[in-house]
Amino acid sequence: MTELAIGVDIGGTKMHAAAVDRTGRIVLERIAPTLAQEGGEAVLLRALELTGAVLAEAERLSGARLAGIGIGSAGQIDFATGKVAYAGETMPGWTGIPLGAAVKERFGLPVWTDNDVNVFAVGEKALGAAREFDHFVCLMLGTGVGGAIMEGGRLVRGAFGGAGELGHLSVNFDGPRCYCGNYGCLELYASGTGIARLAREQAAAETAAAGTDKADGAAGVPEGGSEGPDSHAVIRGWLAGEPWAVRIMDKVVLALGTGISSLVHTFNPQAVIIGGGVAATGEPLMAAIRERVKAQTYPSMGGHLRILPAGLGAGAGVIGAAAQVWVYG
Amino acid sequence: MTELAIGVDIGGTKMHAAAVDRTGRIVLERIAPTLAQEGGEAVLLRALELTGAVLAEAERLSGARLAGIGIGSAGQIDFATGKVAYAGETMPGWTGIPLGAAVKERFGLPVWTDNDVNVFAVGEKALGAAREFDHFVCLMLGTGVGGAIMEGGRLVRGAFGGAGELGHLSVNFDGPRCYCGNYGCLELYASGTGIARLAREQAAAETAAAGTDKADGAAGVPEGGSEGPDSHAVIRGWLAGEPWAVRIMDKVVLALGTGISSLVHTFNPQAVIIGGGVAATGEPLMAAIRERVKAQTYPSMGGHLRILPAGLGAGAGVIGAAAQVWVYG
Repeated sequence: MTELAIGVDIGGTKMHAAAVDRTGRIVLERIAPTLAQEGGEAVLLRALELTGAVLAEAERLSGARLAGIGIGSAGQIDFATGKVAYAGETMPGWTGIPLGAAVKERFGLPVWTDNDVNVFAVGEKALGAAREFDHFVCLMLGTGVGGAIMEGGRLVRGAFGGAGELGHLSVNFDGPRCYCGNYGCLELYASGTGIARLAREQAAAETAAAGTDKADGAAGVPEGGSEGPDSHAVIRGWLAGEPWAVRIMDKVVLALGTGISSLVHTFNPQAVIIGGGVAATGEPLMAAIRERVKAQTYPSMGGHLRILPAGLGAGAGVIGAAAQVWVYG
Repeated sequence: MTELAIGVDIGGTKMHAAAVDRTGRIVLERIAPTLAQEGGEAVLLRALELTGAVLAEAERLSGARLAGIGIGSAGQIDFATGKVAYAGETMPGWTGIPLGAAVKERFGLPVWTDNDVNVFAVGEKALGAAREFDHFVCLMLGTGVGGAIMEGGRLVRGAFGGAGELGHLSVNFDGPRCYCGNYGCLELYASGTGIARLAREQAAAETAAAGTDKADGAAGVPEGGSEGPDSHAVIRGWLAGEPWAVRIMDKVVLALGTGISSLVHTFNPQAVIIGGGVAATGEPLMAAIRERVKAQTYPSMGGHLRILPAGLGAGAGVIGAAAQVWVYG
């Protein structure tokens, strides 16, 4: 008899539900748009519908037993109650939604609910790059920057589950004000939107330096539409050794190296696991970060530290969500 | 029958041993110079001698039972083995000393050994300002800046006990290089030596701005000897509203507010407990920090946060060291 867990991953853009076995294999899956702007109640109904559809299909698989449902959601989640403690502007009305309780009531299975990056850490520990570590920090470099911390094999959750907002670790008190209130947050430099912001700033500085005539631009930031180049264009330019992109990525790597070094001094972890779209750049970015962190940490703590890319691929969200069922069940 | 614990606090300048009861009252105590420059073995022998002297006196107290020995030491301590994992230049040869094992072998009592700021946190939780909190961060603002983190009632220790080096959380990647390797560490702004450094920098900038003639200086940094004003002079000037000192302390408070906000986003604590000589400034500094942190954190996490001065006074070191015996014994 195959045991299956249902994993549900609710992000600002899409939601993803899957039936996952103990090895992390996705047996079946469904994806739906979140349509976050329709409000928290509408998103909850859509999540219940998607979960129900996957559950019904999984129940029809012969020889499968459903062990429970694991949910990972954007926002700050109170793990004890499964309630959304806080969600930002990208998910209006999501704050206060009793997500875990609603799923449990509907389907009558054991349910665990946590924020998406905590769930990512649970998945990496159970099935991914962190299998051999009890003390590690996860950084998700995507549209924003998310984080999770495992200490002695347990997630660090804090007073109500809000811990691990590592995108809002400041690396520069002279930096721009972030929407969280802090100055020079890591997210303003190391996320996709942060990298694009640095490119716009650098283009504006070049234009100003060249007077009203745009400089010849061979070494400058390319125009790339009204918004300037996006993070993908910057990273492509960096990998190709283009000077404008190297200048931008030097700052990105400085911010990441500084923030990760701060986290190493704070947590003395065995490893830092880096995932998300920006990290998909792969080995050149990992190598640059490793070099910086090595130079910027105590040798006693940095010497044995591993800095590794996430081990679970595109399905990391649902696999991690489902892994909660195996870990806590 | 009174139960007593022996607390031993080993710092870079002095060591302090005391017999402490369950309420945190110091029954008897002795202090000796550390003479750290004599090397790790010599410091260990001196600590054994001091501990033995307090132990012998405590044993002579009629009706007293000795429950164990708790040690707090400068440096990074491996709590599991009681060994000094790393100590900086202020304690040469202290790295590698098997402190806990040596004390246990000599006296045959249960022994717990941890770093001085972890021990401070244990004391504040057992008997001080953190009694009602399970999730809190401690910052010690002294000659340097030390830290400790309690999460769910347990100390965050990391891979080998090095966690909590919060003085080496960066707040400014454009800042000066710290001896730890990182840039713009909190310790470079918020410690006694950091505040004195800021005063020297500001004095040098004023001198440069005034050309070779020293400016009239009514609003400038006073000379205060070859080293410039120390942190006490800066803090006195700040409390008196002197503009030169306000400029310096604005930066100190910005660094503290930024670093604490980063810690709030990282740990979602119920409280931040601030101790050490710089914090002895009292309520004006606490109020300034509270205002900054409130402005620089997510309302969901900063709203209910308490920022409090340490509850244990001058004996906090030995009381916290001894409290380990009650907490772990």
